[in-house]
Amino acid sequence: MDSDQTALVGRSFDSLWDSLLPIGRDPRTGGYRRFAWSAADREAKEWFHQAAAARGMPVEVDRNGNLWAWWGDPRPGSVVTGSHLDSVPDGGPFDGPLGVVSAFCAIDLLTARDTSTSGESGGRRSIAVVSFTDEEGARFGVACVGSRLLTGVLDPSQARRLTDADGITLADAMRSAGHDPDRLGRDDEALSRTGAFVELHIEQGRALADLDSAVAIGQGIWPHGRWRFDFTGRADHAGTTKLADRHDPTLAYARTILDARRHAERLGALATFGKVVVEPNGTNAIPSSVRAWLDARAREDATVEELVSAIATASGAAVDRESWSPEVEFDPSLRTRLAEVVAAVIQPTPDSPEAAPSPRRSTVPILGTGAGHDAGILAAKMPTGMLFVRNPTGVSHSPREHADRADCLSGVAALAAVLQDLAGGRGND
Amino acid sequence: MDSDQTALVGRSFDSLWDSLLPIGRDPRTGGYRRFAWSAADREAKEWFHQAAAARGMPVEVDRNGNLWAWWGDPRPGSVVTGSHLDSVPDGGPFDGPLGVVSAFCAIDLLTARDTSTSGESGGRRSIAVVSFTDEEGARFGVACVGSRLLTGVLDPSQARRLTDADGITLADAMRSAGHDPDRLGRDDEALSRTGAFVELHIEQGRALADLDSAVAIGQGIWPHGRWRFDFTGRADHAGTTKLADRHDPTLAYARTILDARRHAERLGALATFGKVVVEPNGTNAIPSSVRAWLDARAREDATVEELVSAIATASGAAVDRESWSPEVEFDPSLRTRLAEVVAAVIQPTPDSPEAAPSPRRSTVPILGTGAGHDAGILAAKMPTGMLFVRNPTGVSHSPREHADRADCLSGVAALAAVLQDLAGGRGND
Repeated sequence: MDSDQTALVGRSFDSLWDSLLPIGRDPRTGGYRRFAWSAADREAKEWFHQAAAARGMPVEVDRNGNLWAWWGDPRPGSVVTGSHLDSVPDGGPFDGPLGVVSAFCAIDLLTARDTSTSGESGGRRSIAVVSFTDEEGARFGVACVGSRLLTGVLDPSQARRLTDADGITLADAMRSAGHDPDRLGRDDEALSRTGAFVELHIEQGRALADLDSAVAIGQGIWPHGRWRFDFTGRADHAGTTKLADRHDPTLAYARTILDARRHAERLGALATFGKVVVEPNGTNAIPSSVRAWLDARAREDATVEELVSAIATASGAAVDRESWSPEVEFDPSLRTRLAEVVAAVIQPTPDSPEAAPSPRRSTVPILGTGAGHDAGILAAKMPTGMLFVRNPTGVSHSPREHADRADCLSGVAALAAVLQDLAGGRGND
Repeated sequence: MDSDQTALVGRSFDSLWDSLLPIGRDPRTGGYRRFAWSAADREAKEWFHQAAAARGMPVEVDRNGNLWAWWGDPRPGSVVTGSHLDSVPDGGPFDGPLGVVSAFCAIDLLTARDTSTSGESGGRRSIAVVSFTDEEGARFGVACVGSRLLTGVLDPSQARRLTDADGITLADAMRSAGHDPDRLGRDDEALSRTGAFVELHIEQGRALADLDSAVAIGQGIWPHGRWRFDFTGRADHAGTTKLADRHDPTLAYARTILDARRHAERLGALATFGKVVVEPNGTNAIPSSVRAWLDARAREDATVEELVSAIATASGAAVDRESWSPEVEFDPSLRTRLAEVVAAVIQPTPDSPEAAPSPRRSTVPILGTGAGHDAGILAAKMPTGMLFVRNPTGVSHSPREHADRADCLSGVAALAAVLQDLAGGRGND
């Protein structure tokens, strides 16, 4: 990028970022609560419409509620990039939004390059910026609902019946937000338009910090899933019920938390009980039930199966698998192409301001991740890749999630180069 | 009671009970959610006003929001009975309301007796039916707020600062419900009017079922308290944070639940973690914090202290005592008097419909309890007693809490006899 382009991308990024930042932020925690089909979600979608309009990009809302902003006519085999705008409870600002903001910035950069070369964009494939709906599954318990519906791996009637903590179904939530839930389902037109998908995302560990690189290419996604554990007890008065007469479900729940950690350590896997709902949750009432969710991941499908089976068997709970994503490996030839293009763009981080660019950084790191992404769902249907932007602390799903602005701008430069390469045009195609 | 009086009490009980039953009931669970200063609480208080008005009893709302319905002029040294109308989350219908309903029924019985003896009530002490506000402490975390404020054991400014789960202060909740929080504080006038207090309550264990008695007299209340445990961790992504890098507060929380049970067994005490708040409580986020409440009780103060100290020390949590009620023994001479009066009224339960009244039931059982009550707070200030009505399953703080109608009517007869005895009049005083 020349210095004009660098300045342009910086301005574009700051403007998009600053306008998105206040939406859905909890003033108490500083974290985000952009849950699918909520008021905050609607506001974030409105932001998307405005960002697209400012770039002259018409927006299509597909039958599953995903937003597509088109740079060029919607055509089969287009290049698609983007991520999601919803969040986990008290999520950070980058998880999802960085991919959408970077996509619009990359479009700005491509537009500037077209202008500086007299707009010779002939022959290029169209590019779409997408924002997938309900990636986190924070409200209805199933992740990547938008991309799962789009690709047909989630049954529409099953999706419509999903309920949130207040008993509101996904169908009703959609209807309240003005989206017709009867339209849900596999969207062959949207799929055929997507010739390739590249998602840029903040890294959710700290591998890049150790590797001294601002950007990495995704290798694949670990198999992972969510299991609901229902521990049933009997509500009783905490002050009058003898220990021997109690059916207190918190005891089995507590043992299961510790079991999960032990088995995860044994198997080199990840196991987390991050969410729990206790009924009636009164200080002087023995709970009638404890419902807890296990998130389990490992490098291989069989390891996750062994982990969950060991935890479930000992728990005594009724266990129900709510979601499952088998191992994903991103398209190897696209991965190679991304690595070459990005390596040509990204400068290594100098160890000090005086240091010369280090010759040892001729390649871009390739990272596997335990985090699920819409790219993991789309990978079954089309060539798909991911770019990760360095997270210096590795903290994610937390208000303290952070990426440096300079690294974000490196991410934009990398993404723009990738889009330019994949879309071709100006005789490159 | 003669058969006319028996029929009258039955009608009176059914009418009061049926009109109170729908208020604050959760249609999903069948349990009650009558939290202090909520809409359901206001509705229950409105019910109280109507029940009093139907009996020509003027109602006073004291400075702390407790309701007093007067039978006779408010005078120093009156006899007071009643209980509370608020509930724990998903509480049963009897815990609290049975004492208030029985009090109004007892007044109906005394009124009928006055009428049948040409209204000779001269010389009798006045009687008040009281409904204490916020006995359960379900919303603001401190139990018996109404009686603690009345007696001066809870500081009014501390009370005003109590907050609920949504961050609403008790002061604001009162203000929204039309009660001035600046009036809170020790109420010497109300105290001086209360010459003696008798609370009727459903039993919250199943001792009476084993003893084959419909009614018991309270011996005292075990020392008990509430401790808040704050386990601090660090929010992180459940799918990308290595086990070794995690600060997951659920592990210490789980160990503490199991510790609490072990120590309670060792000490013959009760320990319950019935309530927990996890932040951010997302399925794929390692929690940043777990806040859990320990309810601990034992026969003696020192045992509770030893129990909580052992649990707190090993937990690694920041531990804060939110409430503490030392051991209470009800006034021994009042207890003896209640036992004599009730024994004369209550018939033993026949083992079968044909069985003759059993000669072995010449005394009424005397029960200690692990449950806190407003009577336990008032006992420090005036002669106080309790009547318990049999709970066949022992289940309480649950929608399945139950007492047989016949036992409830025995409770009314016992309470009426007690009030008649304590109030004197007709030359009995």
